[in-house]
Amino acid sequence: MAHRKIRMGMIGGGKDAFIGAIHRIALNMDGLIELSCGALSHDAKVAKESGEMLFLPEDRIYKSYDELFEKESQLPEDKRIDFVSIVTPNFLHFDPAVKALEHGFNVVVEKPMTFTLDEAKQLQKKVEETGLSLCLTHTYSGYPMVKQAKEMFKKGMFGKVRKIMVEYPQGWLSKLSEREGNAQAAWRTDPKRSGKAGAMGDIGTHAAHLAEYISGLKITKVCADLNIMVEGRALDDDGNVLLKFDNGAAGCLVASQIAAGEENALKIRIYGEEGGIEWAQMEPNTLLVKWLDKPSEIYRAGQGYLTDIAKHNTRTPGGHPEGYLEAFGNIYRNFALSLMAKINGEEPTSAMLDYPRVEEGVRGMAFIDTVVASSQSDKKWTDFVV
Amino acid sequence: MAHRKIRMGMIGGGKDAFIGAIHRIALNMDGLIELSCGALSHDAKVAKESGEMLFLPEDRIYKSYDELFEKESQLPEDKRIDFVSIVTPNFLHFDPAVKALEHGFNVVVEKPMTFTLDEAKQLQKKVEETGLSLCLTHTYSGYPMVKQAKEMFKKGMFGKVRKIMVEYPQGWLSKLSEREGNAQAAWRTDPKRSGKAGAMGDIGTHAAHLAEYISGLKITKVCADLNIMVEGRALDDDGNVLLKFDNGAAGCLVASQIAAGEENALKIRIYGEEGGIEWAQMEPNTLLVKWLDKPSEIYRAGQGYLTDIAKHNTRTPGGHPEGYLEAFGNIYRNFALSLMAKINGEEPTSAMLDYPRVEEGVRGMAFIDTVVASSQSDKKWTDFVV
Amino acid sequence: MAHRKIRMGMIGGGKDAFIGAIHRIALNMDGLIELSCGALSHDAKVAKESGEMLFLPEDRIYKSYDELFEKESQLPEDKRIDFVSIVTPNFLHFDPAVKALEHGFNVVVEKPMTFTLDEAKQLQKKVEETGLSLCLTHTYSGYPMVKQAKEMFKKGMFGKVRKIMVEYPQGWLSKLSEREGNAQAAWRTDPKRSGKAGAMGDIGTHAAHLAEYISGLKITKVCADLNIMVEGRALDDDGNVLLKFDNGAAGCLVASQIAAGEENALKIRIYGEEGGIEWAQMEPNTLLVKWLDKPSEIYRAGQGYLTDIAKHNTRTPGGHPEGYLEAFGNIYRNFALSLMAKINGEEPTSAMLDYPRVEEGVRGMAFIDTVVASSQSDKKWTDFVV
Amino acid sequence: MAHRKIRMGMIGGGKDAFIGAIHRIALNMDGLIELSCGALSHDAKVAKESGEMLFLPEDRIYKSYDELFEKESQLPEDKRIDFVSIVTPNFLHFDPAVKALEHGFNVVVEKPMTFTLDEAKQLQKKVEETGLSLCLTHTYSGYPMVKQAKEMFKKGMFGKVRKIMVEYPQGWLSKLSEREGNAQAAWRTDPKRSGKAGAMGDIGTHAAHLAEYISGLKITKVCADLNIMVEGRALDDDGNVLLKFDNGAAGCLVASQIAAGEENALKIRIYGEEGGIEWAQMEPNTLLVKWLDKPSEIYRAGQGYLTDIAKHNTRTPGGHPEGYLEAFGNIYRNFALSLMAKINGEEPTSAMLDYPRVEEGVRGMAFIDTVVASSQSDKKWTDFVV
Repeated sequence: MAHRKIRMGMIGGGKDAFIGAIHRIALNMDGLIELSCGALSHDAKVAKESGEMLFLPEDRIYKSYDELFEKESQLPEDKRIDFVSIVTPNFLHFDPAVKALEHGFNVVVEKPMTFTLDEAKQLQKKVEETGLSLCLTHTYSGYPMVKQAKEMFKKGMFGKVRKIMVEYPQGWLSKLSEREGNAQAAWRTDPKRSGKAGAMGDIGTHAAHLAEYISGLKITKVCADLNIMVEGRALDDDGNVLLKFDNGAAGCLVASQIAAGEENALKIRIYGEEGGIEWAQMEPNTLLVKWLDKPSEIYRAGQGYLTDIAKHNTRTPGGHPEGYLEAFGNIYRNFALSLMAKINGEEPTSAMLDYPRVEEGVRGMAFIDTVVASSQSDKKWTDFVV
Repeated sequence: MAHRKIRMGMIGGGKDAFIGAIHRIALNMDGLIELSCGALSHDAKVAKESGEMLFLPEDRIYKSYDELFEKESQLPEDKRIDFVSIVTPNFLHFDPAVKALEHGFNVVVEKPMTFTLDEAKQLQKKVEETGLSLCLTHTYSGYPMVKQAKEMFKKGMFGKVRKIMVEYPQGWLSKLSEREGNAQAAWRTDPKRSGKAGAMGDIGTHAAHLAEYISGLKITKVCADLNIMVEGRALDDDGNVLLKFDNGAAGCLVASQIAAGEENALKIRIYGEEGGIEWAQMEPNTLLVKWLDKPSEIYRAGQGYLTDIAKHNTRTPGGHPEGYLEAFGNIYRNFALSLMAKINGEEPTSAMLDYPRVEEGVRGMAFIDTVVASSQSDKKWTDFVV
Repeated sequence: MAHRKIRMGMIGGGKDAFIGAIHRIALNMDGLIELSCGALSHDAKVAKESGEMLFLPEDRIYKSYDELFEKESQLPEDKRIDFVSIVTPNFLHFDPAVKALEHGFNVVVEKPMTFTLDEAKQLQKKVEETGLSLCLTHTYSGYPMVKQAKEMFKKGMFGKVRKIMVEYPQGWLSKLSEREGNAQAAWRTDPKRSGKAGAMGDIGTHAAHLAEYISGLKITKVCADLNIMVEGRALDDDGNVLLKFDNGAAGCLVASQIAAGEENALKIRIYGEEGGIEWAQMEPNTLLVKWLDKPSEIYRAGQGYLTDIAKHNTRTPGGHPEGYLEAFGNIYRNFALSLMAKINGEEPTSAMLDYPRVEEGVRGMAFIDTVVASSQSDKKWTDFVV
Repeated sequence: MAHRKIRMGMIGGGKDAFIGAIHRIALNMDGLIELSCGALSHDAKVAKESGEMLFLPEDRIYKSYDELFEKESQLPEDKRIDFVSIVTPNFLHFDPAVKALEHGFNVVVEKPMTFTLDEAKQLQKKVEETGLSLCLTHTYSGYPMVKQAKEMFKKGMFGKVRKIMVEYPQGWLSKLSEREGNAQAAWRTDPKRSGKAGAMGDIGTHAAHLAEYISGLKITKVCADLNIMVEGRALDDDGNVLLKFDNGAAGCLVASQIAAGEENALKIRIYGEEGGIEWAQMEPNTLLVKWLDKPSEIYRAGQGYLTDIAKHNTRTPGGHPEGYLEAFGNIYRNFALSLMAKINGEEPTSAMLDYPRVEEGVRGMAFIDTVVASSQSDKKWTDFVV
């Protein structure tokens, strides 16, 4: 392990931002990362107040990410940050990400990775050119029981996968909240800041990622029906999508933000020839494992019978529930551990390298493009190609 | 109430049949119906043994339904049956149903109602001509909490419906069981006995019926992807369908018999502007009611706060679970009560008349035709018209 | 199987009675028993109306159980009933039960079996003298998953039992309902009709029976704290009891009728050295099986991997929920099948004989005596002896 | 807010310790506390390695807590720690706690607070004398839904409390693991390190604390049955306790570490006249609220309808599960916020002051004494006095 903490700067995430605060808890919890500097807001006053609230040294509270990159790259190596975390709205991911890489900083970036698929591909090229690391915060892949499920499919325990049902219903956009002062709602429903999809970009991408992550399969075709259910809204707030996978499996994906009364009910079921799994984000420590001719089994986080990778991503013994913040923390922890290994001249383990990367970001952007195109088409199937 | 039990004859349902035995429990439980005669099997020996096992009088154990209709119609009115229950495989519904009506007997018939949509429409005409009653055993609409949900939507408690998710995963056809001596599997996967759809006909029709029954809406378009996942099978064993409803709501319907490890997991979620419901057949005494800005509520069968129609369809106080057989029993009970009312020259109440009818049988057959056509089409949407 | 249905008469259970109606559904459902006559109420008018409602022949609607016994015993053997079912309040069990046996009729009786322990012992003697059968309706032991659990302990799958937690919280006596016209509440809280215990007699006995039935152990000592929580009530409406079992296991039993908001939440957990079970009456088709170092398993009614006795007590395939009425029906069905076997000169199978019997009724009465004595004592432990 | 982080030193919690690592995650997550120094092990090598692993400066990795107190108190005020966190086994709580207070440091200490009740009382006196703050890590009181429940009882929403059922089954001591190299098991089952109770001290105290914390009542009498179920063990590994509360409510408490197959299944149910609550630690984001004549309600963490104090103790929106570490973090966060307020010369809010304190530690030690005494007594009831 490195003889020092990994140092980071945050871009976005000022004092009233939702996701920035979440990132900070996630990166703090394991004591591996030090929040060293920030360009926390385009509003200088907010940036300053936010930096003070976070106990940042005055001279490392920056007014812009450009300033951050410039000043940080001039610092001596033993003070300079190792990476930045970009937690701005979607339209502001690409530029700071590219610049960070160009200044030699590794990158953590929120999803969807960029504003357009084209940007995503450019960013991928930049990552490859620089040899630096980019981590995409597909939080839900950070849960230990998701990793357990992935391992079970990888080992072929359920036979060939035949069916995938993934759903992500939320209810928080059931009203036209974007017109009622809800800042979260405002940018997420605004095509200029969010991109060409609403619910599908915000949460549908998580669902698609999870389906591919656990099953190890790739979506090859979609048939999408995106809807605007709340009058006056500009982007889809609901969608139902038929899926085909590269091994012949079929499935469907539901993402909705007008499922009134739902919180954050991401759930996935995958069925193979011999059995399958069911996992629900709101009770994340349980993985239901179903079998054709045997009782279903309740796999539980923290138990000795789990795979090493599930254990690696757990902090507490069984029955001490971990949640969303720990899943998020796992992504930061693995990213930090892999940077530490590099710094120390060691090879990161495969467990350390198990965080979502630029390739997955490109697929996410392609997913958005494909479902939007499919929804506008009269044809049943639209090919999902990157 | 009539001064006598209602009398019935059973067509099909010999000693090893699955659904016939279920019907008998359902019709027995309330002590309103007397199983008076039967044409229980096309195999004379099985018919006889089955009749004896059911304590039928020897002279009312018939060799065929033709014999049953002939002999029963010659009996004096105070012995003659009031209705027949037809529990044969799908291809054998239409002929006995039509003949029963022609001989003046009311009819209970399993779903799907007929073998083809055309038969269904002919049967509907026959029902209208004779003025007799036909009851279709869409069992799941017999559950009290389903009726509670229906009432809540009828009253508009959730505002306009926006989204319907209905799913019916089973796993029992994950292997090619029809080739391994499973009689149930054999006829249900055989186009000559089952009809043009497999899983969609067998259980997809239940899902579609439930969605329309509870929401009060009608499906207007479908986009179906039917699959044969087990090699060597002739009919769909899996399907995913996008739905559009007549009020603009969207949704999806999943029916699968290759969801390995699933039992009979019919589940429906309906979301309106202000909230919605969730109901799962495997825990049928609970109706989860969700609200936009209030805690979800757990409505429970047998409670005083339920609607009258939910109470009418319940036999036990809260916490004494009723199940599938009672839901089935409700259909028979309501049908019997409405016949009793007619016999006594009374007007059946709306609660008594709340059993599935020939119109729903026609819609069910049209659903099968439409999803099969859609699945074969390259167009995204296929209109659902009857 | 007998060439006729088993015939029974009902004592008590007039038209507004709760438990009588439940018994009728239970006995009807399998088509093995014919309700042939009744002494349904001490009120002649109610008796007559109730009999008519049940389509009993006029001459077999009796005014009293004495009349029933007299007249029925004079009927020819091919019309005469085989058994009576006694569904009156507790104080009225003993006399008709004894007289039934004396007239040669087998007996089904509600629990608690008698009004006093002394009566129970006398009744046991009478059963032994007459060689007739007595069945006690401890409904909860009729559930298939309860039988599955019992078998698993019998086979020693969990090692030596160490701990038993059984609880039966209800909320329906949270108010002084007995003074507000609730007839159920009135007799159950009245020492003259119910006996020396309230909640402990009504539902605590079920809990104690279930603990012994599943574990195969016997309670040897109790330490009881019975409470009257609603002012003005004469009998305990709440109780907590420490238990010791004959193998050294310890446990506790909770029975309460003032657990506001609870329905009928009987639940049992039993732990052995290697694992244990959890079963809850309100979701009776699931048996949770826990293991020391392996995932918990969800055993489900209707599945092929269950024991024969669990299957024998199930009517539907997995995922078609059965409930309280079917559990009750199992008791009647097994009792009827064992009578049929006797009538046919056959040996009833052990599955048929698996219904609660007079010995269990005696233990139930002893349990009531013991917990009441313990509750009044300053000593910690009171021996449970019969 | 203070212009600096709160600084702390850790006593115990070396690299292989379980609870120390948990404390560090909890204190790190909100970025309010800096782990500045430590006396992490009595083994100098372990202490050094542990300190390095935590990136502590070399000169603040101490060999003993005595050294820590001595050196830290000599540091200038702007470097010196504000408090210590004591995470050693039970027998090593009292001495460092007293010395910390004597050196002017505030204290966080694991529960049970001390080794004996007498020590607890001395410690309480010391806290009062010094005017410093002591925080006891009764983690489970840190959950937001526990705080929500407490508020609902405080407001009297359920009427007078009548019944409390609290249970804490674990299975991890089902074998004699203390003899098989399990270090956790070894000290927790050793009277010299753990104290006079085993399971009751380790987890029974949590259960008792939770019952009093939520209900606002005090236990006044207990009737305890403590058992050693695994042969060869020195302390109780299982216990069942009857409870009486100061308002007349009754209840029972179960704590067991031989409930094979259970993880950490702390659960509490409290019933008042009009309804009650149910909360289970393993699904901590849900509070089930039950009512006498209305549907049960599912209160969920992160929702707008919760009380301010529940919201204050939540970091994520609804549906993003928080868990054990966040509950633990809440205790550290509130403690840190109240220290910050003091440092800034401000009055801590009642929300900040809502962490478990020395009085609760004294009651916890008295609980242990009382249940042990009761278990050894033949008398039914033993008074719970402090």
